[in-house]
Amino acid sequence: MMAPSIWPVVSAISLGVGGVFGSLYERSKQHAANNLTLNPGKSNSGWTPFTQAAAAKQQYPSQPPSPNRSGEIMKFGFPDYGQIQMHDNYVISYDRRMRNAKWVFECLTRDEVKYNDAIDRTNCQFEVDQSVHPFFRSTNEDYRGSGYDRGHLAAAGNHRRSDGVMQQTFLLSNVSPQVGDGFNRGIWNNLEKYVRGLTKVYTRVYVCTGPLYLPHWESNRRQYVKYEVIGTNSVAVPTHFFKVVLGETKNQSYDLRAFVVPNKATSDDTPLKNFLVPIDVIERAAGILLFERLPKSLLRSVNAPL
Amino acid sequence: MMAPSIWPVVSAISLGVGGVFGSLYERSKQHAANNLTLNPGKSNSGWTPFTQAAAAKQQYPSQPPSPNRSGEIMKFGFPDYGQIQMHDNYVISYDRRMRNAKWVFECLTRDEVKYNDAIDRTNCQFEVDQSVHPFFRSTNEDYRGSGYDRGHLAAAGNHRRSDGVMQQTFLLSNVSPQVGDGFNRGIWNNLEKYVRGLTKVYTRVYVCTGPLYLPHWESNRRQYVKYEVIGTNSVAVPTHFFKVVLGETKNQSYDLRAFVVPNKATSDDTPLKNFLVPIDVIERAAGILLFERLPKSLLRSVNAPL
Repeated sequence: MMAPSIWPVVSAISLGVGGVFGSLYERSKQHAANNLTLNPGKSNSGWTPFTQAAAAKQQYPSQPPSPNRSGEIMKFGFPDYGQIQMHDNYVISYDRRMRNAKWVFECLTRDEVKYNDAIDRTNCQFEVDQSVHPFFRSTNEDYRGSGYDRGHLAAAGNHRRSDGVMQQTFLLSNVSPQVGDGFNRGIWNNLEKYVRGLTKVYTRVYVCTGPLYLPHWESNRRQYVKYEVIGTNSVAVPTHFFKVVLGETKNQSYDLRAFVVPNKATSDDTPLKNFLVPIDVIERAAGILLFERLPKSLLRSVNAPL
Repeated sequence: MMAPSIWPVVSAISLGVGGVFGSLYERSKQHAANNLTLNPGKSNSGWTPFTQAAAAKQQYPSQPPSPNRSGEIMKFGFPDYGQIQMHDNYVISYDRRMRNAKWVFECLTRDEVKYNDAIDRTNCQFEVDQSVHPFFRSTNEDYRGSGYDRGHLAAAGNHRRSDGVMQQTFLLSNVSPQVGDGFNRGIWNNLEKYVRGLTKVYTRVYVCTGPLYLPHWESNRRQYVKYEVIGTNSVAVPTHFFKVVLGETKNQSYDLRAFVVPNKATSDDTPLKNFLVPIDVIERAAGILLFERLPKSLLRSVNAPL
């Protein structure tokens, strides 16, 4: 649990009445634009990044609270709040409408990911997240016969401190429908291994992972989002997944890398750098802001060569 | 603004570490099942309600907080929190990924909706919601040439107390892309008028309105969600809209009615009762829970004849 004292801050931000939106994104966007572009021809073909949107130049003004009738209006409760849960070793925001996580946050160290004979993945089992209201849960039955793997977002292999810590990654709230051959058991697994490998280079590796539902153009010159839903709980099958990695050096400087990988079979030997994207592509598509509190002066590189 | 003292409660619920989920839904579901069924043949054809999901029988157990690394993991900030905003006369939860509201809550009274010569709708203008981060805003340009109306969720006509109160409903965060002829200017307008008319019957009318993105079956026996996105900000075009109405009598008993209307041209004289649905269809599809704090003993009817 977070300290109770920060909740008023959290709540104030969640009300949109304040909050500072750093210019890290502007900077990272510039870096990214300089260093690489999306690879439109191959693995990312057919989807539209959100970068065409007007650049965010102006500062986010605070809105003074005004007298209102919210106590009366909301007398019988709020339909939802953010669905953030703290586990021992990862933090998750759950999207009740999609029956998928919105994002999952980890902080890896060499110790956390170190191979440990005593921890046996085969002892772990996928289990329903009982803390999610029954209307919004995904279940093992939803996946059965769907053709999709139960793909971890916070990877099991990142959490080898104890059986309990690893088991928590098997909660179905941390799981999304993923194409098995060529994705979950292929390129996505390669990316997870790459990220774990970064713990040999960095003191800490912050990782944010989540699903995306990206639009594509159709022949009528209009854009659509289309994704499958599986099972009686209508679990959304993401079109893509993102992973954003922030490496912390012992001198407290930071390297950022942002990946988007399509949820489809992709040749196993595709270089991971082909999936690097400007971080704001992910932010816009997922509706999130990443590493807002990282002072931009500490950011050493964005999407630097792997 | 809500009283600061309730935030720890809000936050505790949002963390999923507790919270009581009332059995109102069970009750309302029974009522609804007794009183009506979806009209699969006509206006609702082609979409799949979420009611097949296993009924929620068990109570939602609380999860004890455990020691965790969340302070370390989240050192550089949370990617998002709930995006709830209080306006003078309505409350809104914004979905940054969809660039649409998730839900909008109003409490109508005869005074609030009374026609007022001094309030001129033509003085109001659609305006960007500056309190939404620029990455996630919708703009008037997004709608231009799209073929869709800028459709209010909290209806302008419900907020005639002052020009300022009405103007707040013209924030684009309260607006969704709606089919104009036959929907926004037709059946949806009829529904809004019906709801305003209820203020002559009830002391207060609580109204929750929002977009839906409903799945349909395709010939491969799989289900998909498909919706258009418009403009450079990729504003989602909902496939349907819901409106849930709770009428409060002067004796503090309550009548609930829940509507889902497809975002398409529909004959103007379609009876509104054709759009009544069990409330849990909306709850499951939107990822929300409605009127949780309403004691079920006070609920007099669900989807009673109009």
